Amino acid sequence: MKLTVYLAGQIHDDWRNELKKKAETKSLPVEFVGPQENHDRSDSIGEDIMGEQPSQVYRDDAASSVNNFRTQVLLQKSDAVIALFGEKYKQWNTAMDASAAIQLGKPLIIVRPDSLIHPLKELSNQANVTVETIDQALDVLAYIYE
Amino acid sequence: MKLTVYLAGQIHDDWRNELKKKAETKSLPVEFVGPQENHDRSDSIGEDIMGEQPSQVYRDDAASSVNNFRTQVLLQKSDAVIALFGEKYKQWNTAMDASAAIQLGKPLIIVRPDSLIHPLKELSNQANVTVETIDQALDVLAYIYE
Amino acid sequence: MKLTVYLAGQIHDDWRNELKKKAETKSLPVEFVGPQENHDRSDSIGEDIMGEQPSQVYRDDAASSVNNFRTQVLLQKSDAVIALFGEKYKQWNTAMDASAAIQLGKPLIIVRPDSLIHPLKELSNQANVTVETIDQALDVLAYIYE
Amino acid sequence: MKLTVYLAGQIHDDWRNELKKKAETKSLPVEFVGPQENHDRSDSIGEDIMGEQPSQVYRDDAASSVNNFRTQVLLQKSDAVIALFGEKYKQWNTAMDASAAIQLGKPLIIVRPDSLIHPLKELSNQANVTVETIDQALDVLAYIYE
Amino acid sequence: MKLTVYLAGQIHDDWRNELKKKAETKSLPVEFVGPQENHDRSDSIGEDIMGEQPSQVYRDDAASSVNNFRTQVLLQKSDAVIALFGEKYKQWNTAMDASAAIQLGKPLIIVRPDSLIHPLKELSNQANVTVETIDQALDVLAYIYE
Amino acid sequence: MKLTVYLAGQIHDDWRNELKKKAETKSLPVEFVGPQENHDRSDSIGEDIMGEQPSQVYRDDAASSVNNFRTQVLLQKSDAVIALFGEKYKQWNTAMDASAAIQLGKPLIIVRPDSLIHPLKELSNQANVTVETIDQALDVLAYIYE
Amino acid sequence: MKLTVYLAGQIHDDWRNELKKKAETKSLPVEFVGPQENHDRSDSIGEDIMGEQPSQVYRDDAASSVNNFRTQVLLQKSDAVIALFGEKYKQWNTAMDASAAIQLGKPLIIVRPDSLIHPLKELSNQANVTVETIDQALDVLAYIYE
Amino acid sequence: MKLTVYLAGQIHDDWRNELKKKAETKSLPVEFVGPQENHDRSDSIGEDIMGEQPSQVYRDDAASSVNNFRTQVLLQKSDAVIALFGEKYKQWNTAMDASAAIQLGKPLIIVRPDSLIHPLKELSNQANVTVETIDQALDVLAYIYE
Repeated sequence: MKLTVYLAGQIHDDWRNELKKKAETKSLPVEFVGPQENHDRSDSIGEDIMGEQPSQVYRDDAASSVNNFRTQVLLQKSDAVIALFGEKYKQWNTAMDASAAIQLGKPLIIVRPDSLIHPLKELSNQANVTVETIDQALDVLAYIYE
Repeated sequence: MKLTVYLAGQIHDDWRNELKKKAETKSLPVEFVGPQENHDRSDSIGEDIMGEQPSQVYRDDAASSVNNFRTQVLLQKSDAVIALFGEKYKQWNTAMDASAAIQLGKPLIIVRPDSLIHPLKELSNQANVTVETIDQALDVLAYIYE
Repeated sequence: MKLTVYLAGQIHDDWRNELKKKAETKSLPVEFVGPQENHDRSDSIGEDIMGEQPSQVYRDDAASSVNNFRTQVLLQKSDAVIALFGEKYKQWNTAMDASAAIQLGKPLIIVRPDSLIHPLKELSNQANVTVETIDQALDVLAYIYE
Repeated sequence: MKLTVYLAGQIHDDWRNELKKKAETKSLPVEFVGPQENHDRSDSIGEDIMGEQPSQVYRDDAASSVNNFRTQVLLQKSDAVIALFGEKYKQWNTAMDASAAIQLGKPLIIVRPDSLIHPLKELSNQANVTVETIDQALDVLAYIYE
Repeated sequence: MKLTVYLAGQIHDDWRNELKKKAETKSLPVEFVGPQENHDRSDSIGEDIMGEQPSQVYRDDAASSVNNFRTQVLLQKSDAVIALFGEKYKQWNTAMDASAAIQLGKPLIIVRPDSLIHPLKELSNQANVTVETIDQALDVLAYIYE
Repeated sequence: MKLTVYLAGQIHDDWRNELKKKAETKSLPVEFVGPQENHDRSDSIGEDIMGEQPSQVYRDDAASSVNNFRTQVLLQKSDAVIALFGEKYKQWNTAMDASAAIQLGKPLIIVRPDSLIHPLKELSNQANVTVETIDQALDVLAYIYE
Repeated sequence: MKLTVYLAGQIHDDWRNELKKKAETKSLPVEFVGPQENHDRSDSIGEDIMGEQPSQVYRDDAASSVNNFRTQVLLQKSDAVIALFGEKYKQWNTAMDASAAIQLGKPLIIVRPDSLIHPLKELSNQANVTVETIDQALDVLAYIYE
Repeated sequence: MKLTVYLAGQIHDDWRNELKKKAETKSLPVEFVGPQENHDRSDSIGEDIMGEQPSQVYRDDAASSVNNFRTQVLLQKSDAVIALFGEKYKQWNTAMDASAAIQLGKPLIIVRPDSLIHPLKELSNQANVTVETIDQALDVLAYIYE
C-alpha cells in the first residue's frame, strides 16, 4: 500500500532530504511532499508571480496566499503528516498545518526537541505521536508496513 | 442575535478583561469564553486533578489534556473566534486554536502587533480579518450589529 | 418554531425593509439578518477599521474581509437563505452567498426578474425555489407555518 | 504527483486551450477538465436530450440541469479550481462554481482583469490566490512542483 | 430536554393528529413538525405561488420545489424522524425523507403494516427501529424520557 | 477520465445490460456497478449465508443486511448514480438509494416513465436530471466527455 | 453557559446519581443525560414494545435497536461525554459510545480503575482525559467554569 | 473493482491468515490490512521507538499512540471493515475500531461466536451484518462481486 506523507515544518535546514534518504534505505513505499524549501523563493513567490507589492505586509500576504494554495493541495492528497519543530523561529505555520491535519483527520506525528516540550504541550497532546528525532518518526511510519 | 466568541491567545496579561469591558460599553450582546487565564493553574491542572506525574513531560501532558478538553467544549459552542498573538512566548496553542477555528468553519479575527506580520503571514492569510488592536477587533464584531 | 433567514443580495434599494414589513403583517416568527446595507459603509469598512490602504485594490480587499466575516457569522446562524438579484451590477457576492448556502445545506429561495432567467439558469437550477417577487418569496416562507 | 484541475469560467473565448498548451510547455502533470465550451451546445443540451420544452425558461432549466450534472461530477474529481472572469456577461455560474469550490475545500485561483476588482472583491478575498493573467495562474500551479 | 420530531409519510389520513394527541396524553415534551397535510394544497402550492405552469409535469415540479424547501428546513431542525408508510400509493417521498434522515444522522423510526415488510426491507434494515403502530412509535419516543 | 456509476433500481428486467452495451458502443470509459440482479438470490442471500431464519420478517432482514452492505460499498466508490424506476413494484429501496446519493453529494440521474411523474415529483426535483429512457441517461453521461 | 453531558457506561450500580448529586453540590450548570439505567427494562424494551421475539438473539436485537435510538438522540444533543468502565462485564456498548463520541468530535472523559489500564489503552489514548474516579471527572467538568 | 478491507479484532490467533488464504482461493480482488499481529511487538512498540517509560501506564500509552496512528492511516484507506470478537479478553479496541468504522461510514461486518450475542448486541445492531464465522464474512465480501 502506497502512502503520501506531508512534511510540515521548518525550511531552514535539510531535514526533509535526510528523512527521504533514510526512508529509501528502509524501502518504504511512501511519497513525501511538502512546502517550498527555498526560503527566499518562499518569501518572494507572491511578488515573483504578482509583481511588486506596496509594502512588506502586502508582499508577505501575496507570498502566503501562494504558499497556502500549495499546502492545501498537497495536504489534502496526503494520508499522514509529519510536523517538525526546531528551536529557532516562531514556526506558526507549522503549528497551523499540524492543527489543520488534526481537524482534517490526517494522522499526525510531531518531531520536536526536548526543549520545546512545554510550549508544544497542547499540540503534542492532540497529535497521534510525538517523538524527538527523524529516525523515530520513520520508525512510526515503518511500523505501518510490519 | 446573541453570539458566543472564543478568545484564544496569550494568558500573560489582562487583554480579555479589557476587551470584555469595552464590549460592555458598546452593549454588544456577546458572551465571551476562553481558556483558563491563571497561568499557574493552567500549568498545574493535570497534577491538581490526576496527582503527581513522574516528570515534567508527563506533568505537561496531563495539564494539556484538561486544557484541550476545555478548549474543545468552548470552541464548539462559539460562533466566532478572536486570537491574540503577543510578542513574547511561542504561543503555539494559539496558532493551534486559530487553525482549528478555520478548519471548523468558525469565522476568525487575528490580533497581532506589526512586529509579527512576517511569522504570522500564512495564518493571517487564512483568517477572515487581521488587525493590530483589541479596539479594531471589537469594531469588526460590532459591525455585525450595524 | 422560530427561524432565522439570511437576506443575501443587492444593497442598492430598500427591498429588505419591504420584505420585513410584509413578514410582520403575516406575523411570521422569522428573524431576518443580512449584510451591511449602507453601501458607502460597506465599501469603506476596511479602511474605517484598519486605516488607509495603499490603493483601491487593498481598500477593497480590506472591506471585503470584514464583510465576509459578517456574512459567515450570520449565514451559519441561519435556517434558510433568500437571495435577490436585480438588473443592475454584477452581484457576484450574491451568487457567492447563494452557492455557499447550497453547499452548506441551507435551503435557498432565489428572487430575480424575468430578464435574468438565462444568466442565472445554473444557480436557479440548484436553488430550492426561484420566484420573481418578494411576495412570492414570503409565500414560500409562510408555507412552512401552514 | 498528478493533479486534476477544473477550469471554471467563461466559454466565450479560447482561454482553456491557451492554458492547456502553456501547461504542456511546462510539462505539468495536470489533467484539466471543465464545462462544455461549445456555447450553443451548452444552451441547447437540455432540449437536445429531453426534447422541446414549453418556453425559454424551461429550455434554460433543462440545459442547466445537464450542465450542473457535468460540473458536479468533474468538480468533485478535481484537486483544485481555476476560475476565470472576463469583462462581458454576468458569469454567475462562474461565481457559483468558485464559491462551491471554496465550500468543498478545493483550493481556488481566480483570474480576472483589473476592471473587475471591485465587483469580485468578496469572492477574491475568499479565494486562495487572485491573479490577472493565465500565465500567472499557471505559475501558481507550477509552484506546487518546484 | 425538549425534542423536535419530523413526521414524514402519507398525508391521506389523520395519523399525525392522532399521534400528537397521544403524545400530549403522555406529556412528552416533543414538538412535532411535518409536511403540508392538505393534499390539494400540497399539489397546487407551486401554481398557487408561481402561477399557472405549462403542463402537469411543470405543475408537479413547481409544487415539489416548495414542498422540498419546507421539508429541508424542518428536517434540519429535527432531532429525530418518524416515517409512516401506508398500504396505498407509492410514497416515494416518504422513502426519500427516511433515507435523507439516515444520511443526515437523524435517528429514524419507521411505522409500517405487516403487508409492507418485504418491499421496505432495505429501508427498515437501516432505520433505528421499525414498528407497526403509532402507539409503538410513541413508546420508543417516550423511552427517551424514562 | 474514468468514472464509476452505480445503477440503482429495479432488478426485474435486463435494463442494466442494455445500458452497458449501449455505453460500450459509445466507448464511454465508465465502469458500471449495481445491486445483485438475480432476484431470488437477492431475496435469499441472508439465509444463504446465515442459515434459516425463524420467519419471513427475519429472512427479509437478513437478506437486506447483506444487500445494504453491498450497496454501501459500491455507492461510496461511485462518482454518479443512475436510478431507474419502473411501473411495477414499490421500489422503495430505489428511492432510498437515490436519496442517499443526493445526501452524499453523488450526482444523480433518474429514469422513469411518464406515468410516474406525480409520485416521483419530490425526488425528481432533487435529482440533477430526470429523463424517460436509458438512451437519454447515457446521453447525459456521454455529455461529460464532449 | 449551560452544557449537556452524556453519561455512557455501566448500568449496574448507582454511579450516575452519585455524580449528579456531586455536580449539584458544585452548582455546575450541566444537564446530565444517559442510557436506561434499569437493567431489566433495558434488556426487555424490545419485547416490551414490539412483542415476543422468536429467540434470545432477536430479543436482544429488538432491545438494542430501541436503546441505540435513545443513545443516538441524546448523544447528538450533548456537548461532552463521560464514559465509565467498571471491572465487571464486557461493556462493549460503552466502548462503542466512547468511540462514537470521538468520531463525532464530542470531548470525552474516560473513568476507569487502575486494573483496566491495559485493555483500555487505545481508547484512553484517543480520549481527551482519562481519570480514575467520578470526583476527578467532575473536577475536569468544573474546570470549564473557572 | 479492487477493494481494501481492514481486519479489526483480536491478535491472539491466526484468523487473519486463515481469512486471507480463503479469499485467495475465491480469487477476490481484495487487499486486507490490519493491526500489528505480533502481540509482544504491539505492546512494546512505544518503548521500542520512544525509549523506556516511567511506568506501565506510560508504557501502554506510548504503545497505543503508535498503534492508533497505524490504525487511523489504514482504516481511512479501507472500503470496508471486518471486526472479529473472540471469547477471551476485553477487546475494547476492537469495539472502538468497529464503532469508528460506523461513524466514518465504512460498511462493517462483525464476526462473533454465539456466546457473545448479548454483550455485543448494541454494536451488532449498528453493524451492517453480523455473522459467526470467517467463512460467512467472506461470503458477504464475495457477494459484492457476484
